[in-house]
Amino acid sequence: MITTLIAQRLAALREEMRRERLGAFILPTSDPHDSEYTADHWKGREWVSGFTGSAGTAVVTLTGAALWTDSRYFIQAADQLRDTEFQLMKLKMEGTPTIAQWIGEQLRTADTTEVGIDGTTVTTAAAEQLKSDLRREGGLTLRTNLDILQRIWRDRPPIPRHPISIQPAQLAGEDVASKLHRIRQALREQHADGMLVARLDDIAWTLNLRGSDVHCTPVFVAYLLIDSQRATLFVDPQKLSDEVNRYLAANGIATRDYTQVGQGLKDYFEYNILLDPDEVNYYIYNKVEREVVRQPSPIPALKAVKNRAEQDGFRRAMLRDGVALVRWLRWLDESMERLAAGVEPDGALTEIAVADKLEALRSEQPMYGGPSFDTIAGYEAHGAIVHYEATPATDVPLQPRGLLLVDSGAQYLDGTTDVTRTIALGPLSDEQRRVYTLVLRGHIRLAMLHFPDGACGSQLDAIARQPLWQAGLNFLHGTGHGVGSRLSVHEGPHQIRMEWRPAPLRAGMTVTDEPGIYLEGRFGVRIENTLLVQPAGETECGRFLRFEPLTLCPIDRRPILRDLLLQEEIDWLDRYHVTVYDRLSPHLDADDRRWLQQATRPL
Amino acid sequence: MITTLIAQRLAALREEMRRERLGAFILPTSDPHDSEYTADHWKGREWVSGFTGSAGTAVVTLTGAALWTDSRYFIQAADQLRDTEFQLMKLKMEGTPTIAQWIGEQLRTADTTEVGIDGTTVTTAAAEQLKSDLRREGGLTLRTNLDILQRIWRDRPPIPRHPISIQPAQLAGEDVASKLHRIRQALREQHADGMLVARLDDIAWTLNLRGSDVHCTPVFVAYLLIDSQRATLFVDPQKLSDEVNRYLAANGIATRDYTQVGQGLKDYFEYNILLDPDEVNYYIYNKVEREVVRQPSPIPALKAVKNRAEQDGFRRAMLRDGVALVRWLRWLDESMERLAAGVEPDGALTEIAVADKLEALRSEQPMYGGPSFDTIAGYEAHGAIVHYEATPATDVPLQPRGLLLVDSGAQYLDGTTDVTRTIALGPLSDEQRRVYTLVLRGHIRLAMLHFPDGACGSQLDAIARQPLWQAGLNFLHGTGHGVGSRLSVHEGPHQIRMEWRPAPLRAGMTVTDEPGIYLEGRFGVRIENTLLVQPAGETECGRFLRFEPLTLCPIDRRPILRDLLLQEEIDWLDRYHVTVYDRLSPHLDADDRRWLQQATRPL
Repeated sequence: MITTLIAQRLAALREEMRRERLGAFILPTSDPHDSEYTADHWKGREWVSGFTGSAGTAVVTLTGAALWTDSRYFIQAADQLRDTEFQLMKLKMEGTPTIAQWIGEQLRTADTTEVGIDGTTVTTAAAEQLKSDLRREGGLTLRTNLDILQRIWRDRPPIPRHPISIQPAQLAGEDVASKLHRIRQALREQHADGMLVARLDDIAWTLNLRGSDVHCTPVFVAYLLIDSQRATLFVDPQKLSDEVNRYLAANGIATRDYTQVGQGLKDYFEYNILLDPDEVNYYIYNKVEREVVRQPSPIPALKAVKNRAEQDGFRRAMLRDGVALVRWLRWLDESMERLAAGVEPDGALTEIAVADKLEALRSEQPMYGGPSFDTIAGYEAHGAIVHYEATPATDVPLQPRGLLLVDSGAQYLDGTTDVTRTIALGPLSDEQRRVYTLVLRGHIRLAMLHFPDGACGSQLDAIARQPLWQAGLNFLHGTGHGVGSRLSVHEGPHQIRMEWRPAPLRAGMTVTDEPGIYLEGRFGVRIENTLLVQPAGETECGRFLRFEPLTLCPIDRRPILRDLLLQEEIDWLDRYHVTVYDRLSPHLDADDRRWLQQATRPL
Repeated sequence: MITTLIAQRLAALREEMRRERLGAFILPTSDPHDSEYTADHWKGREWVSGFTGSAGTAVVTLTGAALWTDSRYFIQAADQLRDTEFQLMKLKMEGTPTIAQWIGEQLRTADTTEVGIDGTTVTTAAAEQLKSDLRREGGLTLRTNLDILQRIWRDRPPIPRHPISIQPAQLAGEDVASKLHRIRQALREQHADGMLVARLDDIAWTLNLRGSDVHCTPVFVAYLLIDSQRATLFVDPQKLSDEVNRYLAANGIATRDYTQVGQGLKDYFEYNILLDPDEVNYYIYNKVEREVVRQPSPIPALKAVKNRAEQDGFRRAMLRDGVALVRWLRWLDESMERLAAGVEPDGALTEIAVADKLEALRSEQPMYGGPSFDTIAGYEAHGAIVHYEATPATDVPLQPRGLLLVDSGAQYLDGTTDVTRTIALGPLSDEQRRVYTLVLRGHIRLAMLHFPDGACGSQLDAIARQPLWQAGLNFLHGTGHGVGSRLSVHEGPHQIRMEWRPAPLRAGMTVTDEPGIYLEGRFGVRIENTLLVQPAGETECGRFLRFEPLTLCPIDRRPILRDLLLQEEIDWLDRYHVTVYDRLSPHLDADDRRWLQQATRPL
């Protein structure tokens, strides 16, 4: 059924491609705002290919079709692409051609060298890279001014029109005037008169507004044009209640329709404008007639430092999240005991079922606003798939043994959470205990670190890896990322990772601490807290910073090989568990409190 | 006397500047080859200003003169510039203007906006930066085609003409044909047909030749032009013995006079040429008429990985160096005992005297070829000046107490050494013991590290700093650099440092491990070994590397606070000391051996 649909859609797409004399058309997974999660309107790649994963690029030529995605989706994509024309291209696997190489090969004998893409769905930097890659493949050219799907996607969902709400002042902690003042100050330092803000979380942060246009992230689709005097929000007016309209007017923010952003850029009268090529889409970038200051946006660095109100909000959100997590952990423990005793029906407790249970428990908490990303719940071998998302096709029942890795988070009105625990469901192998303990050491080494103010995350990354490296282990993902304040769970500009990210860590920033080890086909371990960067005093060698764990959730003691830990690491864990118990226990019922007392007792 | 000379030289310089209508002239400390140490011919900054330090930039306007240098030379420069027109500009001190700012200020009312520099004495990247800085200071322009000193420096030393020698094949370990083959392969990967090699150590390495034109580094002044078929050495023919001429001819290397390099570039007939803007001087860069591939030179990365013969040479050189170091350490210990007992005349054992003694002991070793850099011997407060070089003006007598920091190295025919020890001359303060032990921890943490093949030094840097950071301490210099094989003691492209240096560490590379702490006005501690990167096996997470200490010299046990060390760190130190004793003792006399046995006994 779906395969017939895909065949019809491919036929329609190719008809348009022939009309436009295009040899290939590229459909990435993105929107005009470089969002991590996109609204349905921009899920063209999914519509054309039938593949529903959150990452991937489809390419269609007149005679072929292929879809590139990463390892977390290999199984799902193979399943969903079966019996379609689409060939699965496994990213980072030996022998997989790049998109440009494959198109070059496909068009070798074609009578056109033109490739199409909707320039609104790709950042300027990515489009420029693609152009240069295609040029090297026999001089292919890229046409970017064509939203071909608009002509063939009859029941295409509209751009979402969910109402916008105001983030209360006592939660935002800084008013719009102050934020705009600081943005303009930063722009002046970059010798820019104004900027176009395209990233939805940056717009939401600047204006203290929130929305629900996008999965897992409380933002709304819009552009914000800031010049030296004024600011204009380009947004569908239907999203604006009278209250929000009054709020915007009171803050001096003009509004125009979302579709008018091109005209708005034409009307922009200052000498130059800052456009971040990693943020602004290629179509919009090329609309600008003023001198472009091609620089990183100053907003992520401002947004990353949480003010006192946001920090307090995080602490309250973490408390509620911790209560839900403790209830869930106790439920999971007891379910496993029943399963081991043969009381629980076998097969009911699957990866999806326990993830759903966690979401249900979180949704009982006040101020809950949904998950902050799709929960990763991977049992044993599935835990070794870094971004595993259980689907009905892959879901497995849990057994009362081995390791369950659960990475999850929630949106609350006053903060966003992100936490990973790896839980012993019963007996473990020696290897599991050893790897678990080494990952925990990595987590603690970073959590304990003091470091000079201004150091960037790339400088700190090895601290979390060193205990793993020493044992011949390593992980390839980042060690940490910023977390938004009721915004995106993945925030920059700072990151803790192997690659160079020069943005310094500053007091007030949130950052995760999430080392892991993934042994293919066997199991995976990751232990993640969200941390807050705090001052650690000044010495004659300068100012130093340290981390405060925001996450309040016990770390499973059962897999730990105590002898592998240094005394200072044992002390850290015991202290952390005292904090978790002290903060959470007043909010728990007697049974949960008893369970937590056991779970947080000294090593 | 010297001040009269300086006044005369300034007058002569200004006369030429007026003739050329230049408002300012810049004299950096460099040569056409971006050398760390320059031959006397290029010491124009010293000739004009009288300041003899190894780093600094003099700037002369028609009405003023100033000299910028860094903290290690503040005292010396103030002394040497006294009673001259030169104003001392202290780099990195608050309120010190940049060179461009100062010139901008000086020329505000001048009737010219033109600034001069000898374009052969500045790299392309540095000249471009200077141009851009001057343009921002009221549109000043930079003229670079003028070696003004040639007209006024009557007794200017000639470009050195010391004979060139062949590095024996059994020490070099790879012949010229093989090296040129690998360079050309790397050039093809960078889409370049050829390159101009300007760095003297890169030329010496490529051709397996050595010289003595430059202080501390056994290189010779030359250029090497490599194209896809041929290679031409531009060198003063007087330096070439018949043997070397035959050797070059046998290797297919053409020779032309050093002064013909400009003509050689005109004659270069290939489509493009790679020029490294951080290597090639601005004058030469602008001579090139072909398309320029502006890329880092591939040679440093090839030279950095030592082959088996070079590694064996390093081990032999370290053995001889270790014997000299042990003799010196024992002599120092016994001298301090005599001093404490009132037997040694007070005041004779100064920083310079003990550095000279070390050089004398090294010079007794076979294959010795001089120091690899100017020895740093800093007692107590002088140890806190990172690059302190004792001069007769600053030299102080040692006392039988406190810490002496000595950073020194030697050139041997088969390897280059670089080692720092901080030595207790007698009783220490608690703070000295604590800082010493923490620096030692940093040294050992890095020395013990296993890490993924391909990690770069910037990723590893924090490992050496973590024990210091934890105590609110930090140092601002790099943690490690490559060491040449009878070449420059400072080699790239890899470094271990806070700033980003993406060049990966590879098996076979040498790198120093030299954390330190400098407490101004009190004391400094640095502990440095030269290490060799070695494979550490392969696991399912990839290939790993580790370090083998090449340096063989006891680390002073006396200041160590044992309780601050982890057991694994104590084990490392004891193992290292066993190696030092086992390797060195067969080459020592009975008294030295006894001393070493004590110095290397388990903690």
